[in-house]
Amino acid sequence: MAAPVALIQGASRGLGFGFCKYILKNKSLATVVATCRNPDGAAELRSLAGQHPGRLMVLRLDVNHEEDIRGAAERVKESFGRLDLVVNSSAMLHPSGKGETSLRDVSAQGIISTLTTNTVGPLVMAKYFSPLLLKGSGGFGQQPAEKAKQHSGIIVNITAKVGSIGDNGLGGWYSYRMSKAALNMATRNLSIELGRSRPKVVCVSLHPGTVNTDLSRPYHRNVPQDKLFSAEHSVNCLMSIVDTLNIEKTGKAYSWDGTELPW
Amino acid sequence: MAAPVALIQGASRGLGFGFCKYILKNKSLATVVATCRNPDGAAELRSLAGQHPGRLMVLRLDVNHEEDIRGAAERVKESFGRLDLVVNSSAMLHPSGKGETSLRDVSAQGIISTLTTNTVGPLVMAKYFSPLLLKGSGGFGQQPAEKAKQHSGIIVNITAKVGSIGDNGLGGWYSYRMSKAALNMATRNLSIELGRSRPKVVCVSLHPGTVNTDLSRPYHRNVPQDKLFSAEHSVNCLMSIVDTLNIEKTGKAYSWDGTELPW
Ligand SMILES: NC(=O)c1ccc[n+]([C@@H]2O[C@H](COP(=O)([O-])OP(=O)(O)OC[C@H]3O[C@@H](n4cnc5c(N)ncnc54)[C@H](OP(=O)(O)O)[C@@H]3O)[C@@H](O)[C@H]2O)c1
Ligand SMILES: NC(=O)c1ccc[n+]([C@@H]2O[C@H](COP(=O)([O-])OP(=O)(O)OC[C@H]3O[C@@H](n4cnc5c(N)ncnc54)[C@H](OP(=O)(O)O)[C@@H]3O)[C@@H](O)[C@H]2O)c1
Repeated sequence: MAAPVALIQGASRGLGFGFCKYILKNKSLATVVATCRNPDGAAELRSLAGQHPGRLMVLRLDVNHEEDIRGAAERVKESFGRLDLVVNSSAMLHPSGKGETSLRDVSAQGIISTLTTNTVGPLVMAKYFSPLLLKGSGGFGQQPAEKAKQHSGIIVNITAKVGSIGDNGLGGWYSYRMSKAALNMATRNLSIELGRSRPKVVCVSLHPGTVNTDLSRPYHRNVPQDKLFSAEHSVNCLMSIVDTLNIEKTGKAYSWDGTELPW
Repeated sequence: MAAPVALIQGASRGLGFGFCKYILKNKSLATVVATCRNPDGAAELRSLAGQHPGRLMVLRLDVNHEEDIRGAAERVKESFGRLDLVVNSSAMLHPSGKGETSLRDVSAQGIISTLTTNTVGPLVMAKYFSPLLLKGSGGFGQQPAEKAKQHSGIIVNITAKVGSIGDNGLGGWYSYRMSKAALNMATRNLSIELGRSRPKVVCVSLHPGTVNTDLSRPYHRNVPQDKLFSAEHSVNCLMSIVDTLNIEKTGKAYSWDGTELPW
């Protein structure tokens, strides 16, 4: 089997960076394409590339710009001709850095920006990268014996528990919640379109838990210490789920502990 | 009790226009505020206003422009000081008029436009009109005897069955499906914020069935005749649901026949 290639979108910091580290360390044959808005500023990524010569390619990609996505897909096509895994990790709570506590904080511009980065970006990623995933070698997940059920690639959209409509008992965080609910619909729709094809691409939404990153920083003091995961721990949990994915599990949202999240 | 005031957003055509007609005909004490992008072009609305002198006020409002929404809320506040019902009806399938059949049709700009009109608009409506709904006289829905459970107003977001993530078995229509899933999250979030207050505002998503309007026109030939409702029939069904709404029913999505839709 060809060596697996994974693309991590939003890899400069937080969970995205954690996925790059995890794969380089634990999948010794895999190559990682790390995308971020500003490669020159991504010192950690550069140092990681130094530790794994020839295994980490860093590409500039602002998920808000369709042209960047198209261009990055061209580059990956030229270099590898295929992909086995795409993780969409980039997101924001709101341009202000804090979720809306009430309608008073809601603005059209704030919602649109959040939706553009968190929801539109991952779907446009799927548009340009799914042809490469359809050519993947199925290097991630679990392959069933039956050939017709095997998958060539996997799309992971990082969602959030607060994006579950049914689970929503607290309210607030309008933009972020709406962006993740819409992202879950994108996951579901992608699983249908890319599950019909042959080979197939598995598409899931994964919730990482509450993780010690910049995104959640304004809220850390409200989180009990044992509920605030390190990015490393969260990525370990999520990659354990990825290791068990197959076409039977496509089109759903899972939490870090493997339980299914309601829509 | 003060005479009820209803605002219908997206009233130039289709279901929105149908709501205006229904309320003027069946709620003889009610006043209707009809909003649309281009009142000068809305001949049917003008003729309806002629048939019900003094009962129909037409305001210009493009739901894509926060300033329009703020301005319309100011006008309603000056004229009535309160509201009993807001129906958000305007929406599009996609700027092209047809939902995406596959990823090939997906574009960032198409999704963003659809989300802006279908999702962001209704939430920004809630921001500016909820203060007036909190001052409403509870003229729509069913009031329980217990005072603490009574509502002052109702928000109806017109959703679509294809916006249900759990019910999605067919795929396609990325932008529209995502916009309605996110709208359902907005409904849920609004029901929490406005259900905590006292008085309370009831918030629901309603699915009108497949209705003979411009929006669904490209698909009419695929719909069995008895499944294609007239706007009048659909509005009759939806207003029967509105008549039974109370705070126990808030925060959910219902179909035209009163059954609850899964998220
Ligand atoms: N942390 C949590 O508790 C938590 C909980 C639930 C879900 N999540 C989800 O987990 C995922 C990762 O979040 P995180 O906690 O790792 O957040 P983070 O540390 O704040 O990292 C966010 C990442 O998104 C990138 N990004 C933002 N806008 C972008 C754009 N337009 N184009 C490309 N990249 C962009 C950032 O890049 P720059 O460095 O260029 O800004 C950064 O790499 C997100 O989807 C988030 O919603 C997190
Ligand atoms: N028809 C169906 O089968 C069906 C099924 C499920 C759900 N729905 C939902 O039912 C609702 C009503 O749709 P419909 O069937 O009545 O559609 P329609 O006949 O096409 O009417 C759409 C309305 O939305 C307005 N609109 C579009 N963009 C707007 C904007 N930026 N600002 C203000 N108004 C805007 C239009 O105004 P202009 O006249 O200015 O263009 C028009 O009044 C929608 O939410 C739709 O998603 C319809």
